[in-house]
Amino acid sequence: MASIGDLQKKIKELEQELKEERSKGGAIRTKISQMSSEVVDSNPYSRLMALKRMGIVDNYEKIRDYTVAVVGVGGVGSVTAEMLTRCGIGKLLLFDYDKVELANMNRLFFQPHQSGMSKVEAAERTLKDINPDVEFEVYNYNITTVDNFDHFMDRIKKGGLTKDTPVDLVLSCVDNFEARMAINTACNEIGQTWIESGVSENAVSGHIQFIIPGETSCFACAPPLVVATNTDEKTLKREGVCAASLPTTMAIVAGFLVQNTLKYLLKFGDVTYYLGYNALQDFFPTMAMKPNPQCDDNHCQRQQKLFQEREALKPKEVVKEKVEEAIVHEDEWGIELVSETTEEELQQAQGDVPTLTQGVTVAYTKPAATKDDNSAVVEDSGESLEELMKKMQRI
Amino acid sequence: MASIGDLQKKIKELEQELKEERSKGGAIRTKISQMSSEVVDSNPYSRLMALKRMGIVDNYEKIRDYTVAVVGVGGVGSVTAEMLTRCGIGKLLLFDYDKVELANMNRLFFQPHQSGMSKVEAAERTLKDINPDVEFEVYNYNITTVDNFDHFMDRIKKGGLTKDTPVDLVLSCVDNFEARMAINTACNEIGQTWIESGVSENAVSGHIQFIIPGETSCFACAPPLVVATNTDEKTLKREGVCAASLPTTMAIVAGFLVQNTLKYLLKFGDVTYYLGYNALQDFFPTMAMKPNPQCDDNHCQRQQKLFQEREALKPKEVVKEKVEEAIVHEDEWGIELVSETTEEELQQAQGDVPTLTQGVTVAYTKPAATKDDNSAVVEDSGESLEELMKKMQRI
Repeated sequence: MASIGDLQKKIKELEQELKEERSKGGAIRTKISQMSSEVVDSNPYSRLMALKRMGIVDNYEKIRDYTVAVVGVGGVGSVTAEMLTRCGIGKLLLFDYDKVELANMNRLFFQPHQSGMSKVEAAERTLKDINPDVEFEVYNYNITTVDNFDHFMDRIKKGGLTKDTPVDLVLSCVDNFEARMAINTACNEIGQTWIESGVSENAVSGHIQFIIPGETSCFACAPPLVVATNTDEKTLKREGVCAASLPTTMAIVAGFLVQNTLKYLLKFGDVTYYLGYNALQDFFPTMAMKPNPQCDDNHCQRQQKLFQEREALKPKEVVKEKVEEAIVHEDEWGIELVSETTEEELQQAQGDVPTLTQGVTVAYTKPAATKDDNSAVVEDSGESLEELMKKMQRI
Repeated sequence: MASIGDLQKKIKELEQELKEERSKGGAIRTKISQMSSEVVDSNPYSRLMALKRMGIVDNYEKIRDYTVAVVGVGGVGSVTAEMLTRCGIGKLLLFDYDKVELANMNRLFFQPHQSGMSKVEAAERTLKDINPDVEFEVYNYNITTVDNFDHFMDRIKKGGLTKDTPVDLVLSCVDNFEARMAINTACNEIGQTWIESGVSENAVSGHIQFIIPGETSCFACAPPLVVATNTDEKTLKREGVCAASLPTTMAIVAGFLVQNTLKYLLKFGDVTYYLGYNALQDFFPTMAMKPNPQCDDNHCQRQQKLFQEREALKPKEVVKEKVEEAIVHEDEWGIELVSETTEEELQQAQGDVPTLTQGVTVAYTKPAATKDDNSAVVEDSGESLEELMKKMQRI
């Protein structure tokens, strides 16, 4: 029988061996106390800090003050976490309860030797090697169970870099409706800004949706069409089929997600409220959706009142007026939709949809050429909204 | 105080970690002789083969028959090679002469422990671990020197999976004008289809351009605006400054590049001739450009004649007529431009350009809202072309 002393000695030896093994092939990067703009090959931040000299970002080093929670560390979430890590984000919280499988090797990030490890642990290890300056907090659990949900919400509220402060942004990279609704519920309750993301089951479309509780449509106000089929990946797997996925679509959606995260946190460019991606035709619909006053989520309704109260106190700005001038449509759902894609374009686009397996829909299609129709730029989008809502009802 | 049970558990964990660490670099995943659609966790191709069941791709497994050359294995090229590897491409040829540096850690793919290794060797090692089914041919040299250029052209002509057949596609992921021109010269001479890609020095815009010698504008006919500053990264580095870069923009451009590669090779969706990305505003301009009959490259002119001869022999198709109907503009440059972005939009967009360092231009800007201007959908884009050409002349 081994003594505690023997076991402790064995642990020390193994730790040493592991350290040596990990340092093979080159110098592992050490922590860097301050981001520098110096242009030397050994500075991992030189090309990021160059964003300041280029006039894009005023204060790039401020990225170290921010905390982002990434929920779901699969095809989109893992790449999202890697991008933020390489950008030098202050802290990342990762949530997932899946294990790495060889079946995940068709997307970026995980490698075959990690098969069998939990996704959050495998991700944390790789990301710490890439950038030891980033702080991590990882949870290997399903956020939708009652206990875990409470813990999840607590970490969103208190997981920021400074003790007991909220995270700065939540990124949803989950693959099913239930988890999206859990994130939506939590963010509505605590008034947490977040970005939703998704990739369709046929692998050739995706979207991101920026959600500020009370100010924009929440996920329960009008869930995006990309989840319009009510079967999640787990159900599909049980039935011996699986959703298709491509490393391209997932990295592009992760890229859009993190690009808008950087724009939001570092205050440059315009944050896009809704950005779609149709890979078959390289079509990128954008729109902004106001919240639904009849939203099923009471916390969303409460946040809407709070937002209106805050707005009423603000002096009227030019920007504000511009928003009010936009052509909007209010129908029986009480949702105002400002779309850059017209009803007519959406209908015409139906013709381009490829033949798909039952239960699968293409979320976005490219408008057919409307070159002769000069009036098609913006018009009443009422029918389009009804059609959207019908699809949402089926979820 | 730790119990024996705890310590034994810790030892098991460490042993597992050590095992994983040691297996890095060795082939964990064994070769798979035939792509299968079987939905099991151990099948790395299940989610790709699902593209068939989803009605997106007729014959996904055909990807194994194709060879792609990736020139430049930096921020865009390394991710491009990884995506193709994970998609199960038959063979990859990689060309680069740079070493991995910590300064590259702000983009995806390379890791700190690879610092000092040549990019092509580091990439080959990682990619073989990810997918041992892919064949590799890597060259650690600069394609622009005379001897290397001849060898490079020879490998494009004869590097296909079947002995002495050409590669199926060349992807340009280089970061300077000289290397782009070398690829253009080679592809014009041998009539090789390729896709150009680029990311701006301010890191917030990029593009891809699909080039079929003789049929579309080549790089010498009308180089894209993204390289409108005539300083390459090497020059900048020598002067103690460096171009900015972001993992987001580079992965998005790589995603567009590989997505269009898949559409082209596997014959699904529409291949986009020119796709731009403006990260500040999430704007994605597209256009098609016909070749310049006065192009400086004689091989381009020869390919144009060959294309016209081939076209003359073809029976007139409906698709052909549609192209001829498009509103085009022919000016003194002899280039016909079919743009989805109008002159007016381009001018209005100037107002949104951020203040930039001298020598840096934003390649693409989002059109300002033209909601009241219904006539702006398509109009003569002559002025726009002149403006474009002026910028190109400065290169």
